[in-house]
Amino acid sequence: MKKSIGILGGMGPLATADLFRKIVLLTDAARDSDHIRVYIDDNPSIPDRTAAILSGGADPLPAMTDSLRKLEACGADCIVMPCNTAHYFLPRLQALTEVPFLNMLEATAASCRQRFPGGTAAVLATKGTLSAGLYQAVLKKAGVPFLLPDETEQDALMRVIYDGVKAGKGPENYRADMEAVVRSLTAQGADHFILGCTELPLAAQALALDVPTVDPTEELARAAIRFCGYSVRP
Amino acid sequence: MKKSIGILGGMGPLATADLFRKIVLLTDAARDSDHIRVYIDDNPSIPDRTAAILSGGADPLPAMTDSLRKLEACGADCIVMPCNTAHYFLPRLQALTEVPFLNMLEATAASCRQRFPGGTAAVLATKGTLSAGLYQAVLKKAGVPFLLPDETEQDALMRVIYDGVKAGKGPENYRADMEAVVRSLTAQGADHFILGCTELPLAAQALALDVPTVDPTEELARAAIRFCGYSVRP
Repeated sequence: MKKSIGILGGMGPLATADLFRKIVLLTDAARDSDHIRVYIDDNPSIPDRTAAILSGGADPLPAMTDSLRKLEACGADCIVMPCNTAHYFLPRLQALTEVPFLNMLEATAASCRQRFPGGTAAVLATKGTLSAGLYQAVLKKAGVPFLLPDETEQDALMRVIYDGVKAGKGPENYRADMEAVVRSLTAQGADHFILGCTELPLAAQALALDVPTVDPTEELARAAIRFCGYSVRP
Repeated sequence: MKKSIGILGGMGPLATADLFRKIVLLTDAARDSDHIRVYIDDNPSIPDRTAAILSGGADPLPAMTDSLRKLEACGADCIVMPCNTAHYFLPRLQALTEVPFLNMLEATAASCRQRFPGGTAAVLATKGTLSAGLYQAVLKKAGVPFLLPDETEQDALMRVIYDGVKAGKGPENYRADMEAVVRSLTAQGADHFILGCTELPLAAQALALDVPTVDPTEELARAAIRFCGYSVRP
Protein backbone atom coordinates (compact mmCIF):
# COMPACT_ATOMS: atom_id res chain seq x y z
CA MET A 1 0.00 0.00 0.00
CA LYS A 2 1.56 3.24 -1.12
CA LYS A 3 1.52 6.19 1.24
CA SER A 4 0.27 9.78 1.09
CA ILE A 5 1.88 13.11 2.02
CA GLY A 6 0.46 15.87 4.20
CA ILE A 7 1.93 19.33 3.64
CA LEU A 8 1.69 21.62 6.65
CA GLY A 9 1.99 24.74 4.57
CA GLY A 10 1.43 28.46 4.25
CA MET A 11 4.87 29.35 5.59
CA GLY A 12 4.92 30.93 2.97
CA PRO A 13 2.28 30.13 0.38
CA LEU A 14 4.51 30.39 -2.70
CA ALA A 15 7.04 28.08 -1.04
CA THR A 16 4.23 25.62 -0.36
CA ALA A 17 3.20 25.71 -4.03
CA ASP A 18 6.88 25.22 -4.92
CA LEU A 19 7.16 22.06 -2.78
CA PHE A 20 3.93 20.64 -4.19
CA ARG A 21 5.11 21.26 -7.76
CA LYS A 22 8.51 19.70 -7.03
CA ILE A 23 6.85 16.57 -5.60
CA VAL A 24 4.77 16.22 -8.78
CA LEU A 25 7.68 16.90 -11.16
CA LEU A 26 10.12 14.63 -9.31
CA THR A 27 7.75 11.64 -9.10
CA ASP A 28 8.58 9.10 -11.79
CA ALA A 29 5.10 8.93 -13.32
CA ALA A 30 3.68 8.32 -16.78
CA ARG A 31 0.03 9.06 -15.97
CA ASP A 32 -2.10 10.73 -13.27
CA SER A 33 -2.60 7.51 -11.31
CA ASP A 34 1.18 6.99 -10.92
CA HIS A 35 1.32 10.05 -8.67
CA ILE A 36 1.20 10.37 -4.89
CA ARG A 37 -1.90 11.53 -3.05
CA VAL A 38 -1.03 14.84 -1.40
CA TYR A 39 -3.06 16.71 1.22
CA ILE A 40 -2.22 20.36 1.78
CA ASP A 41 -3.31 22.82 4.40
CA ASP A 42 -1.91 26.11 3.13
CA ASN A 43 -2.47 28.24 6.20
CA PRO A 44 -0.83 31.64 5.69
CA SER A 45 -2.08 32.89 9.07
CA ILE A 46 0.41 30.79 11.03
CA PRO A 47 2.32 33.44 13.02
CA ASP A 48 5.82 34.25 11.80
CA ARG A 49 8.35 31.72 13.10
CA THR A 50 11.37 34.04 13.25
CA ALA A 51 9.39 36.64 15.21
CA ALA A 52 8.33 33.95 17.69
CA ILE A 53 11.87 32.64 18.17
CA LEU A 54 13.64 36.00 18.38
CA SER A 55 11.32 38.70 19.59
CA GLY A 56 8.42 37.24 21.56
CA GLY A 57 6.04 37.19 18.59
CA ALA A 58 2.83 35.14 18.70
CA ASP A 59 3.34 31.41 19.24
CA PRO A 60 2.78 29.58 15.92
CA LEU A 61 2.23 26.21 17.62
CA PRO A 62 -1.58 26.42 18.05
CA ALA A 63 -2.14 27.22 14.36
CA MET A 64 0.37 24.57 13.30
CA THR A 65 -1.41 22.06 15.52
CA ASP A 66 -4.74 22.92 13.90
CA SER A 67 -3.22 22.19 10.47
CA LEU A 68 -1.64 18.99 11.78
CA ARG A 69 -5.04 17.76 13.01
CA LYS A 70 -6.64 18.49 9.63
CA LEU A 71 -3.91 16.58 7.76
CA GLU A 72 -4.24 13.68 10.23
CA ALA A 73 -8.00 13.61 9.67
CA CYS A 74 -7.44 13.46 5.90
CA GLY A 75 -5.30 10.39 6.44
CA ALA A 76 -1.81 11.69 5.65
CA ASP A 77 0.87 9.03 6.20
CA CYS A 78 3.66 11.55 6.76
CA ILE A 79 3.89 15.29 7.35
CA VAL A 80 6.29 17.73 5.71
CA MET A 81 6.75 21.43 6.44
CA PRO A 82 8.11 23.62 3.63
CA CYS A 83 9.54 26.14 6.13
CA ASN A 84 13.04 25.73 7.52
CA THR A 85 12.45 28.00 10.50
CA ALA A 86 9.32 26.01 11.44
CA HIS A 87 11.59 23.04 12.16
CA TYR A 88 12.43 24.77 15.46
CA PHE A 89 8.96 23.63 16.56
CA LEU A 90 9.24 20.14 15.06
CA PRO A 91 10.03 18.23 18.30
CA ARG A 92 6.95 19.76 19.95
CA LEU A 93 4.77 18.96 16.91
CA GLN A 94 6.12 15.41 16.62
CA ALA A 95 5.19 14.82 20.27
CA LEU A 96 1.54 15.59 19.41
CA THR A 97 1.07 12.89 16.75
CA GLU A 98 1.87 9.35 15.71
CA VAL A 99 2.24 10.46 12.07
CA PRO A 100 5.95 10.81 11.20
CA PHE A 101 7.35 14.20 10.21
CA LEU A 102 10.10 14.17 7.58
CA ASN A 103 12.94 16.53 8.47
CA MET A 104 13.85 18.91 5.63
CA LEU A 105 17.13 20.03 7.26
CA GLU A 106 18.44 16.49 7.79
CA ALA A 107 17.66 15.62 4.16
CA THR A 108 19.58 18.75 3.12
CA ALA A 109 22.64 17.97 5.23
CA ALA A 110 22.76 14.44 3.77
CA SER A 111 22.62 15.89 0.28
CA CYS A 112 25.47 18.36 1.00
CA ARG A 113 27.67 15.51 2.20
CA GLN A 114 26.85 13.36 -0.79
CA ARG A 115 27.08 16.00 -3.52
CA PHE A 116 30.01 18.07 -2.18
CA PRO A 117 32.27 15.67 -0.25
CA GLY A 118 34.71 17.65 1.90
CA GLY A 119 33.18 20.92 0.65
CA THR A 120 32.19 23.90 2.76
CA ALA A 121 28.52 24.87 2.83
CA ALA A 122 27.25 28.43 3.31
CA VAL A 123 23.96 28.53 5.19
CA LEU A 124 21.55 31.12 3.78
CA ALA A 125 18.57 31.31 6.13
CA THR A 126 16.36 33.52 8.29
CA LYS A 127 17.62 35.01 11.51
CA GLY A 128 15.26 32.63 13.34
CA THR A 129 16.78 29.54 11.73
CA LEU A 130 20.35 30.78 12.25
CA SER A 131 19.81 31.96 15.82
CA ALA A 132 18.19 28.65 16.78
CA GLY A 133 21.21 26.80 15.37
CA LEU A 134 19.00 24.50 13.29
CA TYR A 135 21.40 24.02 10.35
CA GLN A 136 24.48 24.15 12.54
CA ALA A 137 23.23 21.06 14.41
CA VAL A 138 22.38 18.90 11.37
CA LEU A 139 25.52 19.89 9.43
CA LYS A 140 27.76 19.16 12.42
CA LYS A 141 26.09 15.76 12.83
CA ALA A 142 26.60 15.03 9.11
CA GLY A 143 30.25 16.17 9.23
CA VAL A 144 29.74 19.02 6.75
CA PRO A 145 31.93 22.13 7.34
CA PHE A 146 29.94 25.34 7.06
CA LEU A 147 30.03 29.13 7.09
CA LEU A 148 27.31 31.44 8.41
CA PRO A 149 26.32 34.92 7.18
CA ASP A 150 27.32 37.76 9.49
CA GLU A 151 24.79 40.25 10.81
CA THR A 152 24.89 42.55 7.75
CA GLU A 153 24.45 39.55 5.47
CA GLN A 154 21.61 38.26 7.62
CA ASP A 155 19.87 41.63 7.26
CA ALA A 156 20.28 41.39 3.49
CA LEU A 157 18.80 37.86 3.43
CA MET A 158 15.83 38.96 5.53
CA ARG A 159 15.15 41.70 2.95
CA VAL A 160 15.33 39.15 0.10
CA ILE A 161 12.88 36.85 1.93
CA TYR A 162 10.38 39.31 3.43
CA ASP A 163 10.52 42.44 1.22
CA GLY A 164 11.20 40.43 -1.93
CA VAL A 165 9.68 36.95 -2.34
CA LYS A 166 7.01 37.03 0.40
CA ALA A 167 5.94 40.50 -0.81
CA GLY A 168 5.50 39.16 -4.36
CA LYS A 169 8.25 41.41 -5.77
CA GLY A 170 10.40 40.61 -8.80
CA PRO A 171 14.14 39.77 -8.72
CA GLU A 172 15.25 43.34 -9.55
CA ASN A 173 14.20 44.20 -5.97
CA TYR A 174 16.60 41.79 -4.28
CA ARG A 175 19.37 41.00 -6.78
CA ALA A 176 21.94 43.30 -5.16
CA ASP A 177 21.33 41.92 -1.66
CA MET A 178 21.49 38.27 -2.72
CA GLU A 179 24.56 38.70 -4.90
CA ALA A 180 26.44 40.60 -2.19
CA VAL A 181 25.87 37.78 0.31
CA VAL A 182 26.95 35.09 -2.16
CA ARG A 183 30.07 37.08 -3.14
CA SER A 184 31.15 37.58 0.45
CA LEU A 185 30.66 33.96 1.50
CA THR A 186 32.40 32.70 -1.66
CA ALA A 187 35.39 34.90 -0.78
CA GLN A 188 35.40 33.29 2.69
CA GLY A 189 35.64 29.80 1.16
CA ALA A 190 32.09 28.54 0.65
CA ASP A 191 31.83 26.21 -2.33
CA HIS A 192 28.10 25.52 -2.15
CA PHE A 193 25.08 27.36 -0.80
CA ILE A 194 22.21 25.94 1.20
CA LEU A 195 19.07 27.86 0.20
CA GLY A 196 17.88 27.33 3.77
CA CYS A 197 14.67 29.34 3.73
CA THR A 198 11.92 28.08 1.39
CA GLU A 199 11.67 31.53 -0.21
CA LEU A 200 15.34 31.35 -1.28
CA PRO A 201 15.04 28.65 -3.99
CA LEU A 202 12.37 30.90 -5.53
CA ALA A 203 14.73 33.89 -5.33
CA ALA A 204 17.66 31.87 -6.72
CA GLN A 205 15.56 30.67 -9.64
CA ALA A 206 14.26 34.16 -10.43
CA LEU A 207 17.84 35.50 -10.29
CA ALA A 208 19.26 32.56 -12.30
CA LEU A 209 21.94 32.36 -9.60
CA ASP A 210 25.00 30.62 -11.04
CA VAL A 211 26.71 29.14 -7.97
CA PRO A 212 26.31 25.53 -6.73
CA THR A 213 23.25 25.35 -4.50
CA VAL A 214 21.42 22.78 -2.39
CA ASP A 215 17.66 23.28 -2.43
CA PRO A 216 16.05 21.98 0.78
CA THR A 217 12.57 22.11 -0.83
CA GLU A 218 13.78 19.72 -3.53
CA GLU A 219 15.53 17.47 -1.00
CA LEU A 220 12.31 17.33 1.03
CA ALA A 221 10.34 16.44 -2.09
CA ARG A 222 12.72 13.57 -2.86
CA ALA A 223 12.61 12.32 0.74
CA ALA A 224 8.80 12.39 0.74
CA ILE A 225 8.53 10.56 -2.60
CA ARG A 226 10.83 7.80 -1.34
CA PHE A 227 9.06 7.58 2.04
CA CYS A 228 5.76 7.02 0.24
CA GLY A 229 7.16 4.09 -1.76
CA TYR A 230 7.41 5.88 -5.12
CA SER A 231 10.44 6.38 -7.36
CA VAL A 232 12.18 9.71 -7.93
CA ARG A 233 12.35 10.67 -11.61
CA PRO A 234 15.93 10.01 -12.80
CA MET B 1 -14.56 37.03 7.86
CA LYS B 2 -12.56 36.09 4.82
CA LYS B 3 -13.15 32.73 3.21
CA SER B 4 -11.03 29.71 2.34
CA ILE B 5 -10.71 27.62 -0.82
CA GLY B 6 -10.87 23.84 -1.16
CA ILE B 7 -9.21 22.39 -4.25
CA LEU B 8 -10.61 19.04 -5.35
CA GLY B 9 -7.50 18.10 -7.25
CA GLY B 10 -5.34 15.41 -8.76
CA MET B 11 -7.02 15.66 -12.19
CA GLY B 12 -4.09 15.97 -13.01
CA PRO B 13 -1.55 16.70 -10.30
CA LEU B 14 0.54 19.22 -12.26
CA ALA B 15 -2.63 21.13 -13.18
CA THR B 16 -3.57 21.18 -9.49
CA ALA B 17 -0.16 22.61 -8.61
CA ASP B 18 -0.65 25.15 -11.42
CA LEU B 19 -3.99 26.35 -10.00
CA PHE B 20 -2.57 26.62 -6.49
CA ARG B 21 0.40 28.65 -7.74
CA LYS B 22 -1.87 30.93 -9.77
CA ILE B 23 -4.07 31.58 -6.72
CA VAL B 24 -0.98 32.59 -4.72
CA LEU B 25 0.54 34.74 -7.47
CA LEU B 26 -2.75 36.47 -8.34
CA THR B 27 -3.67 37.36 -4.75
CA ASP B 28 -2.81 40.98 -4.01
CA ALA B 29 -0.63 40.32 -0.96
CA ALA B 30 2.40 41.96 0.63
CA ARG B 31 3.05 39.30 3.29
CA ASP B 32 2.15 35.68 4.12
CA SER B 33 -0.84 36.65 6.24
CA ASP B 34 -2.46 38.56 3.33
CA HIS B 35 -2.97 35.26 1.51
CA ILE B 36 -5.99 32.95 1.38
CA ARG B 37 -6.15 29.69 3.32
CA VAL B 38 -6.23 26.89 0.76
CA TYR B 39 -7.00 23.22 1.42
CA ILE B 40 -6.02 20.74 -1.27
CA ASP B 41 -6.77 17.09 -1.74
CA ASP B 42 -4.58 16.12 -4.67
CA ASN B 43 -6.01 12.69 -5.41
CA PRO B 44 -4.46 11.34 -8.61
CA SER B 45 -6.38 8.06 -8.31
CA ILE B 46 -9.69 9.64 -9.32
CA PRO B 47 -10.68 7.58 -12.39
CA ASP B 48 -10.23 9.29 -15.75
CA ARG B 49 -13.20 11.54 -16.55
CA THR B 50 -13.09 11.24 -20.33
CA ALA B 51 -12.98 7.43 -20.12
CA ALA B 52 -16.02 7.49 -17.81
CA ILE B 53 -18.01 9.79 -20.11
CA LEU B 54 -17.12 8.13 -23.42
CA SER B 55 -16.25 4.51 -22.94
CA GLY B 56 -17.78 3.14 -19.76
CA GLY B 57 -14.63 3.68 -17.66
CA ALA B 58 -14.81 3.57 -13.86
CA ASP B 59 -17.14 6.15 -12.28
CA PRO B 60 -15.03 8.95 -10.75
CA LEU B 61 -17.86 10.16 -8.51
CA PRO B 62 -17.09 8.00 -5.42
CA ALA B 63 -13.44 9.16 -5.31
CA MET B 64 -14.48 12.76 -5.98
CA THR B 65 -17.02 12.51 -3.16
CA ASP B 66 -14.34 11.23 -0.78
CA SER B 67 -12.21 14.30 -1.60
CA LEU B 68 -15.22 16.57 -1.23
CA ARG B 69 -15.90 15.21 2.27
CA LYS B 70 -12.27 15.77 3.30
CA LEU B 71 -12.34 19.38 2.07
CA GLU B 72 -15.67 19.96 3.86
CA ALA B 73 -14.19 18.55 7.08
CA CYS B 74 -11.23 20.95 6.75
CA GLY B 75 -13.71 23.81 6.60
CA ALA B 76 -13.42 24.94 2.98
CA ASP B 77 -15.85 27.76 2.13
CA CYS B 78 -15.91 26.98 -1.59
CA ILE B 79 -14.75 24.13 -3.80
CA VAL B 80 -12.89 24.41 -7.09
CA MET B 81 -11.92 21.63 -9.50
CA PRO B 82 -8.93 22.25 -11.78
CA CYS B 83 -10.24 19.80 -14.39
CA ASN B 84 -12.58 20.96 -17.14
CA THR B 85 -13.87 17.47 -17.93
CA ALA B 86 -14.72 16.90 -14.24
CA HIS B 87 -17.32 19.67 -14.57
CA TYR B 88 -19.52 17.06 -16.28
CA PHE B 89 -20.03 15.65 -12.75
CA LEU B 90 -20.48 19.06 -11.09
CA PRO B 91 -24.29 19.01 -10.79
CA ARG B 92 -24.12 15.61 -9.05
CA LEU B 93 -21.34 16.80 -6.72
CA GLN B 94 -23.11 20.08 -5.95
CA ALA B 95 -26.20 18.09 -4.92
CA LEU B 96 -24.10 16.34 -2.24
CA THR B 97 -23.00 19.46 -0.34
CA GLU B 98 -23.98 22.89 0.93
CA VAL B 99 -20.50 24.22 0.08
CA PRO B 100 -20.63 26.16 -3.20
CA PHE B 101 -18.61 24.96 -6.19
CA LEU B 102 -17.16 27.68 -8.43
CA ASN B 103 -17.60 26.85 -12.12
CA MET B 104 -14.38 27.14 -14.13
CA LEU B 105 -16.12 26.99 -17.51
CA GLU B 106 -18.58 29.80 -16.70
CA ALA B 107 -15.70 32.00 -15.51
CA THR B 108 -13.91 31.25 -18.78
CA ALA B 109 -16.89 32.08 -21.00
CA ALA B 110 -17.33 35.40 -19.16
CA SER B 111 -13.67 36.21 -19.76
CA CYS B 112 -13.94 35.41 -23.51
CA ARG B 113 -16.87 37.78 -23.85
CA GLN B 114 -15.12 40.53 -21.94
CA ARG B 115 -11.65 40.24 -23.49
CA PHE B 116 -12.65 39.44 -27.11
CA PRO B 117 -16.01 41.13 -27.76
CA GLY B 118 -17.56 39.71 -30.92
CA GLY B 119 -14.59 37.36 -31.38
CA THR B 120 -14.69 33.67 -32.19
CA ALA B 121 -13.29 31.24 -29.62
CA ALA B 122 -11.71 27.90 -30.49
CA VAL B 123 -12.33 25.30 -27.81
CA LEU B 124 -9.28 23.11 -27.14
CA ALA B 125 -10.35 20.35 -24.78
CA THR B 126 -10.52 16.60 -24.14
CA LYS B 127 -12.90 14.38 -26.08
CA GLY B 128 -14.89 13.98 -22.86
CA THR B 129 -15.38 17.73 -22.43
CA LEU B 130 -16.24 18.23 -26.12
CA SER B 131 -18.53 15.22 -26.37
CA ALA B 132 -20.44 16.28 -23.24
CA GLY B 133 -20.92 19.75 -24.76
CA LEU B 134 -19.65 21.47 -21.62
CA TYR B 135 -18.06 24.49 -23.31
CA GLN B 136 -20.69 24.65 -26.04
CA ALA B 137 -23.35 25.24 -23.34
CA VAL B 138 -21.56 28.00 -21.42
CA LEU B 139 -20.34 29.81 -24.56
CA LYS B 140 -23.81 29.77 -26.10
CA LYS B 141 -25.26 31.15 -22.87
CA ALA B 142 -22.61 33.91 -22.83
CA GLY B 143 -23.19 34.71 -26.52
CA VAL B 144 -19.64 33.82 -27.57
CA PRO B 145 -19.31 32.33 -31.12
CA PHE B 146 -17.03 29.30 -31.17
CA LEU B 147 -15.32 26.65 -33.29
CA LEU B 148 -14.60 23.06 -32.27
CA PRO B 149 -11.70 20.82 -33.28
CA ASP B 150 -12.59 18.04 -35.70
CA GLU B 151 -11.85 14.41 -34.94
CA THR B 152 -8.24 14.47 -36.21
CA GLU B 153 -7.59 17.61 -34.17
CA GLN B 154 -9.21 16.05 -31.12
CA ASP B 155 -6.86 13.06 -31.47
CA ALA B 156 -3.91 15.47 -31.60
CA LEU B 157 -5.10 17.30 -28.46
CA MET B 158 -5.54 14.01 -26.58
CA ARG B 159 -1.90 13.16 -27.43
CA VAL B 160 -0.74 16.57 -26.14
CA ILE B 161 -2.67 16.06 -22.89
CA TYR B 162 -2.10 12.37 -22.14
CA ASP B 163 1.17 11.42 -23.89
CA GLY B 164 2.71 14.86 -23.32
CA VAL B 165 1.85 16.82 -20.15
CA LYS B 166 0.32 14.06 -18.01
CA ALA B 167 3.23 11.77 -18.94
CA GLY B 168 5.73 14.40 -17.77
CA LYS B 169 7.19 14.86 -21.27
CA GLY B 170 8.80 18.05 -22.60
CA PRO B 171 7.30 20.33 -25.29
CA GLU B 172 9.33 18.79 -28.13
CA ASN B 173 7.03 15.77 -27.79
CA TYR B 174 3.84 17.66 -28.54
CA ARG B 175 4.80 20.84 -30.40
CA ALA B 176 3.80 19.55 -33.85
CA ASP B 177 0.38 18.36 -32.66
CA MET B 178 -0.47 21.55 -30.81
CA GLU B 179 0.72 23.87 -33.59
CA ALA B 180 -1.20 21.94 -36.25
CA VAL B 181 -4.45 22.30 -34.29
CA VAL B 182 -3.91 26.02 -33.70
CA ARG B 183 -3.03 26.61 -37.38
CA SER B 184 -6.11 24.80 -38.63
CA LEU B 185 -8.55 26.56 -36.29
CA THR B 186 -6.96 29.95 -37.03
CA ALA B 187 -7.51 29.32 -40.73
CA GLN B 188 -11.16 28.60 -39.95
CA GLY B 189 -11.58 31.98 -38.23
CA ALA B 190 -10.74 31.49 -34.56
CA ASP B 191 -9.24 34.61 -33.03
CA HIS B 192 -8.69 33.29 -29.52
CA PHE B 193 -8.13 29.86 -28.00
CA ILE B 194 -9.69 28.45 -24.85
CA LEU B 195 -7.09 26.19 -23.21
CA GLY B 196 -10.01 24.08 -22.01
CA CYS B 197 -8.16 21.22 -20.37
CA THR B 198 -6.02 22.08 -17.34
CA GLU B 199 -3.01 20.40 -18.95
CA LEU B 200 -3.20 22.80 -21.92
CA PRO B 201 -2.08 26.02 -20.16
CA LEU B 202 0.99 24.03 -19.08
CA ALA B 203 1.55 22.92 -22.69
CA ALA B 204 0.98 26.45 -24.04
CA GLN B 205 3.46 27.89 -21.56
CA ALA B 206 6.10 25.26 -22.34
CA LEU B 207 5.62 25.91 -26.07
CA ALA B 208 5.55 29.71 -25.66
CA LEU B 209 2.45 29.63 -27.86
CA ASP B 210 2.03 33.05 -29.46
CA VAL B 211 -1.73 33.23 -30.17
CA PRO B 212 -4.32 34.92 -27.92
CA THR B 213 -5.45 32.42 -25.29
CA VAL B 214 -7.90 32.24 -22.41
CA ASP B 215 -6.61 30.17 -19.51
CA PRO B 216 -9.47 28.60 -17.52
CA THR B 217 -7.11 27.78 -14.63
CA GLU B 218 -6.26 31.47 -14.30
CA GLU B 219 -9.92 32.50 -14.61
CA LEU B 220 -10.82 30.02 -11.86
CA ALA B 221 -8.04 31.40 -9.66
CA ARG B 222 -9.39 34.94 -10.11
CA ALA B 223 -12.97 33.83 -9.41
CA ALA B 224 -11.89 32.01 -6.24
CA ILE B 225 -9.85 34.97 -4.95
CA ARG B 226 -12.82 37.29 -5.42
CA PHE B 227 -15.28 34.82 -3.89
CA CYS B 228 -13.12 34.65 -0.77
CA GLY B 229 -13.18 38.44 -0.34
CA TYR B 230 -9.59 39.10 -1.42
CA SER B 231 -8.29 41.36 -4.22
CA VAL B 232 -6.76 40.13 -7.47
CA ARG B 233 -3.27 41.54 -8.05
CA PRO B 234 -3.56 44.27 -10.68
